[in-house]
Amino acid sequence: MSLANRDLITIDDFSNQEIEAVLSLADEMAGSIRKQSGLCQGMVMASLFFEPSTRTRLSFEAAMNRLGGRVISVVEMSNTSLAKGESIADMARVVGSYADIIVIRHPWEGAAQVVADYAEVPVINAGDGGHEHPTQTLCDLYTLKKERQTLEGLKIALWGDLKYGRTVHSLAYALARFGADIHFRPSPGLELPEHVVRKLTTEYSGMLERYNGSEDMKIEGLFPLDAVYITPSGPHQLANIPAVGIQIEMEKGVDALYVTRLQKERIEAGAGGDELYYPVVDKKLLREKRFEETIVMHPLPRVDELAYEIDADPRSMYFKQAQRGVPIRMALIALLLGAKQAAVPEGKRPSRVIKKAYTVYKRSTGLLCLNKNCVSRQETETRYIKPRFQIVSKNPLTLRCVYCEHEIHPRYIASSKWHQGIVERKRYYSADSSMLRRIQPENLIIFDSEDIAQARGFKPAKKAFRGKAKKR
Amino acid sequence: MSLANRDLITIDDFSNQEIEAVLSLADEMAGSIRKQSGLCQGMVMASLFFEPSTRTRLSFEAAMNRLGGRVISVVEMSNTSLAKGESIADMARVVGSYADIIVIRHPWEGAAQVVADYAEVPVINAGDGGHEHPTQTLCDLYTLKKERQTLEGLKIALWGDLKYGRTVHSLAYALARFGADIHFRPSPGLELPEHVVRKLTTEYSGMLERYNGSEDMKIEGLFPLDAVYITPSGPHQLANIPAVGIQIEMEKGVDALYVTRLQKERIEAGAGGDELYYPVVDKKLLREKRFEETIVMHPLPRVDELAYEIDADPRSMYFKQAQRGVPIRMALIALLLGAKQAAVPEGKRPSRVIKKAYTVYKRSTGLLCLNKNCVSRQETETRYIKPRFQIVSKNPLTLRCVYCEHEIHPRYIASSKWHQGIVERKRYYSADSSMLRRIQPENLIIFDSEDIAQARGFKPAKKAFRGKAKKR
Amino acid sequence: MSLANRDLITIDDFSNQEIEAVLSLADEMAGSIRKQSGLCQGMVMASLFFEPSTRTRLSFEAAMNRLGGRVISVVEMSNTSLAKGESIADMARVVGSYADIIVIRHPWEGAAQVVADYAEVPVINAGDGGHEHPTQTLCDLYTLKKERQTLEGLKIALWGDLKYGRTVHSLAYALARFGADIHFRPSPGLELPEHVVRKLTTEYSGMLERYNGSEDMKIEGLFPLDAVYITPSGPHQLANIPAVGIQIEMEKGVDALYVTRLQKERIEAGAGGDELYYPVVDKKLLREKRFEETIVMHPLPRVDELAYEIDADPRSMYFKQAQRGVPIRMALIALLLGAKQAAVPEGKRPSRVIKKAYTVYKRSTGLLCLNKNCVSRQETETRYIKPRFQIVSKNPLTLRCVYCEHEIHPRYIASSKWHQGIVERKRYYSADSSMLRRIQPENLIIFDSEDIAQARGFKPAKKAFRGKAKKR
Repeated sequence: MSLANRDLITIDDFSNQEIEAVLSLADEMAGSIRKQSGLCQGMVMASLFFEPSTRTRLSFEAAMNRLGGRVISVVEMSNTSLAKGESIADMARVVGSYADIIVIRHPWEGAAQVVADYAEVPVINAGDGGHEHPTQTLCDLYTLKKERQTLEGLKIALWGDLKYGRTVHSLAYALARFGADIHFRPSPGLELPEHVVRKLTTEYSGMLERYNGSEDMKIEGLFPLDAVYITPSGPHQLANIPAVGIQIEMEKGVDALYVTRLQKERIEAGAGGDELYYPVVDKKLLREKRFEETIVMHPLPRVDELAYEIDADPRSMYFKQAQRGVPIRMALIALLLGAKQAAVPEGKRPSRVIKKAYTVYKRSTGLLCLNKNCVSRQETETRYIKPRFQIVSKNPLTLRCVYCEHEIHPRYIASSKWHQGIVERKRYYSADSSMLRRIQPENLIIFDSEDIAQARGFKPAKKAFRGKAKKR
Repeated sequence: MSLANRDLITIDDFSNQEIEAVLSLADEMAGSIRKQSGLCQGMVMASLFFEPSTRTRLSFEAAMNRLGGRVISVVEMSNTSLAKGESIADMARVVGSYADIIVIRHPWEGAAQVVADYAEVPVINAGDGGHEHPTQTLCDLYTLKKERQTLEGLKIALWGDLKYGRTVHSLAYALARFGADIHFRPSPGLELPEHVVRKLTTEYSGMLERYNGSEDMKIEGLFPLDAVYITPSGPHQLANIPAVGIQIEMEKGVDALYVTRLQKERIEAGAGGDELYYPVVDKKLLREKRFEETIVMHPLPRVDELAYEIDADPRSMYFKQAQRGVPIRMALIALLLGAKQAAVPEGKRPSRVIKKAYTVYKRSTGLLCLNKNCVSRQETETRYIKPRFQIVSKNPLTLRCVYCEHEIHPRYIASSKWHQGIVERKRYYSADSSMLRRIQPENLIIFDSEDIAQARGFKPAKKAFRGKAKKR
Repeated sequence: MSLANRDLITIDDFSNQEIEAVLSLADEMAGSIRKQSGLCQGMVMASLFFEPSTRTRLSFEAAMNRLGGRVISVVEMSNTSLAKGESIADMARVVGSYADIIVIRHPWEGAAQVVADYAEVPVINAGDGGHEHPTQTLCDLYTLKKERQTLEGLKIALWGDLKYGRTVHSLAYALARFGADIHFRPSPGLELPEHVVRKLTTEYSGMLERYNGSEDMKIEGLFPLDAVYITPSGPHQLANIPAVGIQIEMEKGVDALYVTRLQKERIEAGAGGDELYYPVVDKKLLREKRFEETIVMHPLPRVDELAYEIDADPRSMYFKQAQRGVPIRMALIALLLGAKQAAVPEGKRPSRVIKKAYTVYKRSTGLLCLNKNCVSRQETETRYIKPRFQIVSKNPLTLRCVYCEHEIHPRYIASSKWHQGIVERKRYYSADSSMLRRIQPENLIIFDSEDIAQARGFKPAKKAFRGKAKKR
């Protein structure tokens, strides 16, 4: 199985089988780190970090060097200095003609996808804003596999900042795909974003039960339980059990406690980040029976959420996680450069998740991604990027930005073909009217407001199809 | 032919033959980029970038790595942090004792020359302020050669910011030396600097006809025609033909349109850079018959001067230009390090241009380069650099700074030898008096003002030799 | 003799014999710099510079590259951007799991020691605030050895900023250990810190005679003589000779003049750094008979303290010193990585200095290092670092911070064991009372103020043991 010339932008770019193949090669390399220096001789990796990240960058650069390849680096403290107003697409084309592989970290969500679209070499996303960080997820999965011997059917608690912690988003998707049960325990106000929840529940076939941090779920020293995600393969069916049942379930403990730091740099000023409830994992907590066999994971760097006193505890895995980043990235780079073939794990059933093929909406009808940090919203990029969306739901109409995966809910629709069935000539309809299902996807026109629809020469639909939409 | 231990500070450091040799080796290497990793094993390149430049730096570093050599880098956003007030000369001596070759970019004009003067290893200028950028010129020439099969007798239009775009200066010199006709089409206010014009007309034996962007030369969407440079070998003699003739000539088109971005960072605040006329090269323009076979070149990064819609046009060469930067720099580095010999192109006649050997004026008589950005004017450098000038013309007296090549026009002269012929004892004369030609170059003393001359003990000349100079 | 897996944090981490072994290997390598590229193949050095330092960083990175190893780098202009509030200990653990050796420069004194404490690989201190810079000392010693053929019994004058110049501190210790006589000639106000003087006189068995820059010692163009350090092995015994004697001694000249620049960046604002007396070493000075055979050394970068006119003088060694940094660092890295064994210099007597084993005081009794720049005082580090001190003297009670080596003089003591001998139950005593000698080191409790002692439940001692301490 070859992964040569593939990109890794989101964790969903790899099937479960491919993920297992990376882990397996990493494990092989981990035992002989200094003996891999012949693999990528003569090859060059561009390491482009437009956001501070000592750890991830050094880990990638160490990996390429251990493979005998060479590294050229850009370390910019702010994206403002990006070469004299140049677009990401231009940079990608140029750097892609210098190097054999590109690793990119960028503060804008979707930036890595743009680099992959324009560079002619494999591209690895090393973190794009609050979007994804798939190689961190590979490291996390590697540690779970090493410590629990399998990735299937685990029970994992995700703690802390689940809103801005991009590592948590990539990890949740991967865990769902491997059939894990996930307990979401966010710091109040930092719950998982809606678009992540939707993806978990619509694309990975699991169910999410909400507890909204209700009072009777609160335990001192723990983040409140916000929701539990259960996959069909999971041994329990919590969906119908009452709060009492979940409490019992909670007391059984988890395979891993995955803690994240508060992403202070992403919380906007005035959002009150300082008053957040953010308990510390310490010796006292780990003495609780429910955590007796729980490993503690953290993507690092930590701030105050892990007490130093637990560093020596055999359940503390965070430094091992970091250490394992080098062989994981060595395996990944070697595979994408075609220097190694991926071994097909024996007796494995094929990946259970296949990327959903949504209809993509490309018309220029004034729709914009609402995420200000999305690459499609940036001045230098709008010269060539047109907004594009996947239609991920029709009830209600939900469009997902192809770059940052944030969702929008436009209000009006029309058809590019009229005189056909009941669709009237140049009328627009409410997005929640029954008309939405009657228009063929290739004919669908979507507007965000009546003003825009009318400016394009459309008239309001007759009463019957106005639906429940109200004028904004 | 060996280029080992040579420096490349201005494009004139290489003869035409040597330039062709670099291009030829680059072309050889371009076909086997990954197989050159044995050439510079054990050698170290210092990559010193004291000004932002992702592209050029990465290109050099990729080149050295592809050759199997190693890179040590300095990337400083501002020259203020240059090691604790250290001079460039000291830095050059020290880094030159660590590395086998130095690549330097610096915001001060002439800085690369100083590095070459003090380091004991080959030095490559990767851009020194608005002065020169000779390796960009090598990339440009390589693309011209690849796309037009020859460098001789081309017709090239230079567009946009011809004042601050250093790549344009180096390129214009090289084009002139290869017998090109050049159409200068600057954005009004950003014409070619005077000292570049002088060098073109006095050192490369071509003629410059001025049109000054006159109204009848204006064509919508084009930068106005400022001047045309014609070399003797060129097929046309425009010098005497009227505006009508040049218009016909213009309609014949050019081999290449070389577009540059506005160098906003070099235009001083308040210089009104925002109101400049700066038309965009777009599909509409390229549909004009005159551009039918014209390739579009640009040193990148672009801002708005090239529309994205032409990226896919086969005439668009700018991404290829960038890509070709790696083999060009590989060839250059390998040659300067002596890892490769330059092949003498068969049947080539010797270079037509030989650097003019001007008299150098070194006396400390208060003359200063007027370019505030010249390395000879910087506080840290005046400890050891004395102003030095080439006497490039006596009518009017014109001195060219040996560092930045800007020119000054001092007003008074004297002789260090008197009692000889008609030269009176300790008198000073107007620089435009006939006395200038009578004083032997080795005896010439030059003053910028009468005050300074008198402070040094000289008295005004008798009336006959006062010339046309007026007291400032 | 193997130095594999050792750290080099202060020059005292190596015995004299080990220092000589590094110098000897460096000298061997200096002759074949380009032929060492097989030694560290497959190994990775992390080069972590949290303070500007072009020279030292490039020298280390060139060295590792010359050895065939690879480099991953962090260059941060300010420590504020240290990964999102992460501690040095965490960074050390993580980077130590990526790389085979760590080189660290940091603005906090003691930071390198912390890195060595937490990383599992060898650590080299490339400068920690104003504390030490031991590899600079190795370069200095290498130049002394090359130019004077021996390190034993030299006479060295240290000039300029002896307070903030960390290179001077490391060098003074090393010179003392090799039996040198040292003439300290600081710029007035920038004398050697007290803790350095103490270490010189108590740990290296030499004597220090003070002259305090007295008027009759002043010579135009020279920094005033502050003190002379004489080792027992030295040929002269100045301790008892009057000022006239020292003047004669001074006129005999020295083997080397070691000049340092003013460390402007460490002098606090308003400390009047601009008005300092800071004479320049120039041609005139070097024409003095006493300097006829004196070599001039400087760790570079220089500012104004060495005139450019002496650069060509054969006695000027500063560029050679810099150049020799590469083979020195190659030898050091190869030894610590175990890629080379240290040759035992034939016929050498064992090192004369063995690190003194002081009692370490670890109790949490409110003692703090008074050096604001000490790593033990930094917010991110106090989460895991507890202040620790060596008890270096009991008369007066003097504690040396184990991180930055600054000293404190606490005022009160008590014993953790009472009912024993005359030590009363929970009483505290003045630190200068005779009680200090009666309490066993393992029982000693130290307080900085009576308030703290009383807050911990201790009462004042009876009158007899109040000593001379006064309430602060």
